[in-house]
Amino acid sequence: MKSLTRASGLLSRQGLTSFTTTRASTLQQCLYSSTTTPTTARKPQRQVIFSGIQPTGVPHLGNYLGALQQWKRMQDSADPETTDLIFSVVDLHAITVPQQRGNLKKWKREMLAALLAIGLDPKRCTIFYQSMVPGHSELQWILSCTASTGYLSRMTQWKSKLQLADDANMLDDKAKSSLKHGLFSYPILQAADILVHRATHVPVGEDQRQHLEFARECVTNFNHAYKGKVLVAPETILSPTKRVMSLQLPTKKMSKSDPDPSSRILLTDTPSEIHSKILKARTDSLTPSLGITFDPVQRPGVSNLLQLLSHFDSQNRSAQEIAAQINVEVGNQLGGEGEENPLRKLKERVSEVVQRELNPIRERYLELLEGDEGKEGGYLDEVIREGARKANESAERTLSRVRRAVELGA
Amino acid sequence: MKSLTRASGLLSRQGLTSFTTTRASTLQQCLYSSTTTPTTARKPQRQVIFSGIQPTGVPHLGNYLGALQQWKRMQDSADPETTDLIFSVVDLHAITVPQQRGNLKKWKREMLAALLAIGLDPKRCTIFYQSMVPGHSELQWILSCTASTGYLSRMTQWKSKLQLADDANMLDDKAKSSLKHGLFSYPILQAADILVHRATHVPVGEDQRQHLEFARECVTNFNHAYKGKVLVAPETILSPTKRVMSLQLPTKKMSKSDPDPSSRILLTDTPSEIHSKILKARTDSLTPSLGITFDPVQRPGVSNLLQLLSHFDSQNRSAQEIAAQINVEVGNQLGGEGEENPLRKLKERVSEVVQRELNPIRERYLELLEGDEGKEGGYLDEVIREGARKANESAERTLSRVRRAVELGA
Repeated sequence: MKSLTRASGLLSRQGLTSFTTTRASTLQQCLYSSTTTPTTARKPQRQVIFSGIQPTGVPHLGNYLGALQQWKRMQDSADPETTDLIFSVVDLHAITVPQQRGNLKKWKREMLAALLAIGLDPKRCTIFYQSMVPGHSELQWILSCTASTGYLSRMTQWKSKLQLADDANMLDDKAKSSLKHGLFSYPILQAADILVHRATHVPVGEDQRQHLEFARECVTNFNHAYKGKVLVAPETILSPTKRVMSLQLPTKKMSKSDPDPSSRILLTDTPSEIHSKILKARTDSLTPSLGITFDPVQRPGVSNLLQLLSHFDSQNRSAQEIAAQINVEVGNQLGGEGEENPLRKLKERVSEVVQRELNPIRERYLELLEGDEGKEGGYLDEVIREGARKANESAERTLSRVRRAVELGA
Repeated sequence: MKSLTRASGLLSRQGLTSFTTTRASTLQQCLYSSTTTPTTARKPQRQVIFSGIQPTGVPHLGNYLGALQQWKRMQDSADPETTDLIFSVVDLHAITVPQQRGNLKKWKREMLAALLAIGLDPKRCTIFYQSMVPGHSELQWILSCTASTGYLSRMTQWKSKLQLADDANMLDDKAKSSLKHGLFSYPILQAADILVHRATHVPVGEDQRQHLEFARECVTNFNHAYKGKVLVAPETILSPTKRVMSLQLPTKKMSKSDPDPSSRILLTDTPSEIHSKILKARTDSLTPSLGITFDPVQRPGVSNLLQLLSHFDSQNRSAQEIAAQINVEVGNQLGGEGEENPLRKLKERVSEVVQRELNPIRERYLELLEGDEGKEGGYLDEVIREGARKANESAERTLSRVRRAVELGA
């Protein structure tokens, strides 16, 4: 079942709500599908959606389907009168792991150009580099003073980055010798990112649920310590998992860090690059007479391609439905060769669909970078400075309340 | 021996250098007595002295002799052409432990007035509230990304604040349940305080040595990670210990947190309050015929009073010398009563000396607060805003280099 509906009561109680941006005709519909009582449903109030993305350079298809496409859809469906959209390229998070010299600046710029290329409108959204808004680290410090170190040490991200087991602790030899304090404190900065803009709704993937819960805990701790409703607890927009797997190792997520570039498709890949990567995609050697089946465990490669088709399908069909459709199309040619080989047919179709989606994005991206190349104060520069100005204003509104409560400042 | 000279080679090698502000006729002399090779001696370069103090309200005699008097002396002796003085009231540190509502703002203001009352000149020094300079928390975050959590967990301050043993670890039940992340991260913010102003010299007491070493470690880590001499390692000005003990429990340091107000003398105490507190000071019941002896272990109360006299002594005499002098003065009256009782004589003398030192401070303090009462934009406000402006400029100079190295910002 691909089609998702508004969270049922049961799902809500389990905190397992979800929504489809494709189904929800207005953002309001999406927003009510949150993990907590949707007070917003009763009292119309300004909604603030915040999300951040790491500056990893040109995004790949996994980034696009996992997050960026949703940002664009929120922009297009949310009412500007009632909803602010704030998107941050989180360079202060990027430095919690070592970066190669020269990469970060370039990658931020590429990510920014990609955000604009997919159609985010800087007039509608606030788009900024996190490090241009000092309020993020200021609130990080303030929150840290009421945040529990014990809670932080139980979180799993620092452990997975150090390749430790989920139940490892701070006294583990590897943690003692190599855990940097910034990586350990990451969830507090992430909480500050959200809270400093008084975000009411945060779209997150399953892997970030823990951090969102921590952000809510930060609000509870802070508001309790300072006896007031100073900070706003964000609600979760848990999006349906749109995981895209590596084309070469389809049991792993598509990733920028994979040394093999043919494992991923970048938003800026040319039609022929896309075609060649998809055709080379690892599927399986099951006999072609089986046709196409959706079976992520036994046939991860094929299933990944079917998922891709499903994600981009204008008729919203599930991967299973698409598999059946292809089998019907190749019909008696099951086991056929060349164009009529069902796997080949699947790949050609994926290639075609992905090209159609990415072509206009690549063209806009190149236009943006070409028009801007080397120019100080060019368009991208202008966009990011204006975004930072707006984000600083937004952060300042929260910080002035926080400072008053904590008795900071003059 | 009270008189201290410039560090000998031996002391330097032990990292146990010390200096007397009273002896050193210029700050330069003081500064060369640092724990590392005094490169400043060879190449005249701009020196920046940074120090911070917690906003605990009106300082007591322990704060004054332990830090503030030294600040004043540095101001009076350092050449403005070559030395900047930056003093911060560190409210972002204060919130690492719970504060009672309404205290922090009041206490910051009282501390500021006291700093001016002891004679710090806001035209000569940069005096500011830490929270008015966001660069402190910004650099805190950046430093945290290259700072070792293992090193932090070995530091003792968070353990002593939680009343844990120095060898306690993060898995201790009390640490797990009540250690706040800000308290644990305290040394990184302290490093940022120093480094963001490119401080070359930091006067510290013995109890802060560990933190200064950590700050130097932060510089090493950062400069190594970003392959450049971006941050400056501060040198330590280790001041001779001028510890002032509680008047009521003379084995403990004089402290603002002691519930008994007669245990401490505030800089704003009136002459009669000073007199009454000193006369009530706990000494000992040793037979008066012993006279006055300096023996911190056996006679902590008497020794504390003698130390006070010595600290304020215009002839720079040691506590022993002063004890001997008093015994000579009371001479045959040893064992006498009333004014001629040697203990009484000692107390009267302490009271007189302390009053003489504090009277002008109290008067200036009252003038400052009275002249300013309730006025937004009054003199104190003006001082702290101008201080914050200068401190922000100073921080920005460092941060622009840091951001360039880390590839933060636009």
